[in-house]
Amino acid sequence: MTNFSIDTHLSPIKKEKPNWGELEFGKVFTDHMFIMDYKEGKGWHDARIVPYQPITLDPAAMIFHYGQTVFEGLKAYLAKDGRILLFRPEKNMQRLNRSNDRLCIPPIDEDLALDALKQLIAVDKEWVPTVEGTSLYIRPFIIATEPYLGVSASASYRFMIILSPVGSYYKEGIHPVKILVENEYVRAVSGGTGEAKTAGNYAASLKAQETADQKEYSQVLWLDGVEKKYIEEVGSMNIFFKINDEIITPALNGSILPGVTRDSIIALLKYWNIPVSERRISIDEVMDAYRDGQLQEAFGTGTAAVISPIGELLWNNEKMIVNGGKTGELSKKLYDTLTGIQKGDLEDPFGWVTEIK
Amino acid sequence: MTNFSIDTHLSPIKKEKPNWGELEFGKVFTDHMFIMDYKEGKGWHDARIVPYQPITLDPAAMIFHYGQTVFEGLKAYLAKDGRILLFRPEKNMQRLNRSNDRLCIPPIDEDLALDALKQLIAVDKEWVPTVEGTSLYIRPFIIATEPYLGVSASASYRFMIILSPVGSYYKEGIHPVKILVENEYVRAVSGGTGEAKTAGNYAASLKAQETADQKEYSQVLWLDGVEKKYIEEVGSMNIFFKINDEIITPALNGSILPGVTRDSIIALLKYWNIPVSERRISIDEVMDAYRDGQLQEAFGTGTAAVISPIGELLWNNEKMIVNGGKTGELSKKLYDTLTGIQKGDLEDPFGWVTEIK
Repeated sequence: MTNFSIDTHLSPIKKEKPNWGELEFGKVFTDHMFIMDYKEGKGWHDARIVPYQPITLDPAAMIFHYGQTVFEGLKAYLAKDGRILLFRPEKNMQRLNRSNDRLCIPPIDEDLALDALKQLIAVDKEWVPTVEGTSLYIRPFIIATEPYLGVSASASYRFMIILSPVGSYYKEGIHPVKILVENEYVRAVSGGTGEAKTAGNYAASLKAQETADQKEYSQVLWLDGVEKKYIEEVGSMNIFFKINDEIITPALNGSILPGVTRDSIIALLKYWNIPVSERRISIDEVMDAYRDGQLQEAFGTGTAAVISPIGELLWNNEKMIVNGGKTGELSKKLYDTLTGIQKGDLEDPFGWVTEIK
Repeated sequence: MTNFSIDTHLSPIKKEKPNWGELEFGKVFTDHMFIMDYKEGKGWHDARIVPYQPITLDPAAMIFHYGQTVFEGLKAYLAKDGRILLFRPEKNMQRLNRSNDRLCIPPIDEDLALDALKQLIAVDKEWVPTVEGTSLYIRPFIIATEPYLGVSASASYRFMIILSPVGSYYKEGIHPVKILVENEYVRAVSGGTGEAKTAGNYAASLKAQETADQKEYSQVLWLDGVEKKYIEEVGSMNIFFKINDEIITPALNGSILPGVTRDSIIALLKYWNIPVSERRISIDEVMDAYRDGQLQEAFGTGTAAVISPIGELLWNNEKMIVNGGKTGELSKKLYDTLTGIQKGDLEDPFGWVTEIK
């Protein structure tokens, strides 16, 4: 790997580390961050690692008005032997550039970004938490910074990487969640930005989540924006069903986020010779399978939670209790295997894991 | 009107004013801005006018990641008699709160916001430009500021108002624009955020605009996200057609922005006893009318450009030349009347205009 020139300014102060056993998700940040700027005509420049600190922007910066921004999320894990491991980070950088293309943001050099990420983690390596179930969450993101109120692509951008030691995404750890099937609001539609990892998709999801919270459901299941019939994804995760011993996940149709965990789960299932298909699946089909006693398991997949078993789906006031509300055998096996590979406890037949030297 | 307590810190420095005759849109900002903060448990607080300056945020501030933000756009005009006039500003504040609701942002006090806006303009009154076709563009906006990477509504926000003296939105002034009917990308869909004035809608529009720019079209015409058949809006404006002496504009269906200029145009037409209907209208209907010689005029409406006559529509490589590519009589009359009322040159039978004392 090329070693790009990244200026490093170490922080004179080391913040006190939180208790690793009490970590929440995304509330505490490390001592340093990575920054690189872009200017039309000059390209990406001034790659640097600096102390974690507030950033200063003109109130007219386009990020505040027209939402031109993309992000990624991935994790670093501490192996038992002390190595720090990343899981398929190149996939995140590839997706970041696909998101950039959709949002009219100039592409980044993926090798440089990967190198920056590794150098940053090496600098803040004491921040990779050591307690079971914890990890260092990595958030690369790009924001439009030009101070201009015309609706157009910005002439300047900032790429940043920040790090946050995290516990489990769900406070309760891996256990089945209750999901509300959303009938009113829509997350994304073909031709929109659903395939990109961009802020507006998440802003659009808050209202439905608010209703789910009120009803004490953990997340919502999004249906397609056209017929409100076909399953898209759950909250901020992809979704899988085990129906009659076949694993089914919605095919990537242009409005579904192509999850790295989703891709890894499909690869694992194929490796195990378990039938898996990516295809269109309607909520009616799931309900029919449930009524016929053939809906065996359901689970969400994503970087933050890895696997979220689904214990209940509520659709039009009708409850589907999945696998008696308990974590399914396959969900558990996938969780154990994937987190085992991620943490270096299990063999990695796919070459997914990268060590940070 | 109540006079709310707004702390005012005047800038020690007055920036040099640009040449009013050479103003572009949204590139120059005045000497001051308005800020008010929100914190869960405390509500909106610390309303203040301060020198225009950069703002400082944590890199984890939710605005950078999940796009929870809303904005408004309106203008102040200098009348010939020296009065500074606002056009229906209460409509913008009402819409800001409707957008807030969709984006799970706590509502603002509309009277306070209006008062703040007026006080801010009074402080920067020398920045209302004096040249024909110019105005002071006003941008109220709210951003989520909590440093937290969980996908949820922020616990803190900042409401700001910034001001920018502007020339015409289109450099060429009022003259017919060429519009590309968009077949691939989608701006919004029912159940999404199209009705709200929020950043993600604009981010989603950039890619299509890029294609329009390449083909030398001024903006795109959005079709509905479900059937890609029904007309929604054009670029960042609402759209009207004059077909067989009837004025038609798409009905507000949940994915169209309810424009203040749109509402004013409908009121003007009704006042003039010109038949106007808000209903679903397909691109096929427009094409059929064009082929039959009944498509008489088309124009976009919005705060920035007021009225944009449409001289050409390109759909599936077929061109519709509207009114010989020239500004239609009605488009011109609406532009002259509305800008006349806005600038205090014409009588205001609707009570739309508010003076800033």
